[in-house]
Amino acid sequence: MNKNPIGVFDSGVGGLSVLKQFLHYLPNENYIYLGDTARVPYGNKSQSIVQEYARQATEFFIDNEVKMIVIACNTVSAVAIEAVQKIAKSIPVIEMIRPASEAAITSSQNSRVGVIGTRATINSEAYIHELKKYDKYSNLKITSTACPLFVPLVEEGYLQSEAAELIARDYLETFATEEIDTLVLGCTHYPFLRDLIHKILPHVKLIDTGEAAAIQAKKIIENENISAGIEAKDGSNIEFYLTDTPYTFTNIAENLLGFKIEKIKKVNLD
Amino acid sequence: MNKNPIGVFDSGVGGLSVLKQFLHYLPNENYIYLGDTARVPYGNKSQSIVQEYARQATEFFIDNEVKMIVIACNTVSAVAIEAVQKIAKSIPVIEMIRPASEAAITSSQNSRVGVIGTRATINSEAYIHELKKYDKYSNLKITSTACPLFVPLVEEGYLQSEAAELIARDYLETFATEEIDTLVLGCTHYPFLRDLIHKILPHVKLIDTGEAAAIQAKKIIENENISAGIEAKDGSNIEFYLTDTPYTFTNIAENLLGFKIEKIKKVNLD
Repeated sequence: MNKNPIGVFDSGVGGLSVLKQFLHYLPNENYIYLGDTARVPYGNKSQSIVQEYARQATEFFIDNEVKMIVIACNTVSAVAIEAVQKIAKSIPVIEMIRPASEAAITSSQNSRVGVIGTRATINSEAYIHELKKYDKYSNLKITSTACPLFVPLVEEGYLQSEAAELIARDYLETFATEEIDTLVLGCTHYPFLRDLIHKILPHVKLIDTGEAAAIQAKKIIENENISAGIEAKDGSNIEFYLTDTPYTFTNIAENLLGFKIEKIKKVNLD
Repeated sequence: MNKNPIGVFDSGVGGLSVLKQFLHYLPNENYIYLGDTARVPYGNKSQSIVQEYARQATEFFIDNEVKMIVIACNTVSAVAIEAVQKIAKSIPVIEMIRPASEAAITSSQNSRVGVIGTRATINSEAYIHELKKYDKYSNLKITSTACPLFVPLVEEGYLQSEAAELIARDYLETFATEEIDTLVLGCTHYPFLRDLIHKILPHVKLIDTGEAAAIQAKKIIENENISAGIEAKDGSNIEFYLTDTPYTFTNIAENLLGFKIEKIKKVNLD
């Protein structure tokens, strides 16, 4: 038994889709959610700056004695995971790329897998690198595309609009041509666009990176026997920390998570 | 005569549209362009965090002995101008709101003026406050709307797409109903969308905040007799400093300014 919290880190609201999956698979844990809303988004920024921000977040979690760190952001997972692990030492770190890659390989029947993500994630080729580890017969065909407008469309609630559909068709048309059967939604914002993506690619299995990561975390917590076993209701087990208190966070969080957020604490990471 | 540079500050690429206007109206000056690309965008962030970033930028300019500071960002102008002026002391500070408001009042024949900007700019009501100062007959009608998706559309080069037009029609329809004759493009990214906005509101005069500011700066430099009088060609008079070196800056800058950017220096503001 270990009642210490699980630290969930993202640059902003995207990680809430991961938190939601964790609350589903691991409801009896304490959580600290840390959103770096003062410097959001990370997806178009350089590797070195994202690594610096990730190191600061990890130090915050260590100060708060977390028992597990969840990098609830594909960009950070793609470019800064080594920087996080180096500081985290013996604290288990759950990132997004490996669980999602494993899930994609398990899902694909025709060995044609697609990946979408931010520009930083796609340019890092982290998914290509990870997926190839499981490519037993060297016949895996991976197609990947950056979809930089998806994050602002989600943050502005343009989920089902005609404009969002036009932009999505633009980004996704290559996957229809490539006849993929599995698509990794390689950014924690993208599950918000699941219905739209499904409409455009109806026969493709969509991999939610947060869900794959939550399933992996559940295994570790069970294997190491470190569950908290607490009773929680309507977010009573979550503390929210943000580096800025922006206009839209609370609304998006309450709509997604389905409970009222009473208190958000402000923290300075730099 | 004063050969010290003019400091131009923005969170990212938007301020380049202001720099372009300055290069047109004041070609014989030296410039330092500072883009806070590590923390871009500012438009959805809180007032206090934007004030902190603006103070850091001002200190950078003071260290670099600028003779004038241009706040080439409407969000910073709207929420942080006092913080900047307090540190700048006797260095003249040119911001975006006042010159654009004066230009809008001069332009409007029917006293119906529209303002578009980021959420931070619109929520601050800085334009309403400033425009009302010139409302001699108390008959000015101001309509304002935040257009948060315009910045990412510009940064991704979606300037003439059908999706951009749908989103723009959504944001701008209120201005047709209100029968405005003048619209302030209250964000330095928006001049990139000028053709699209003109298509939707063909009879409305569009005010470019960067142009209005450059005209005001030219007057100050002439009145105070502090022009540099240097000869410059293809950006030889500009030093670029960024807090991060992102993927898209150089491309956007070279396309907009029409010359090759040889060197960008990286700087840490915090």
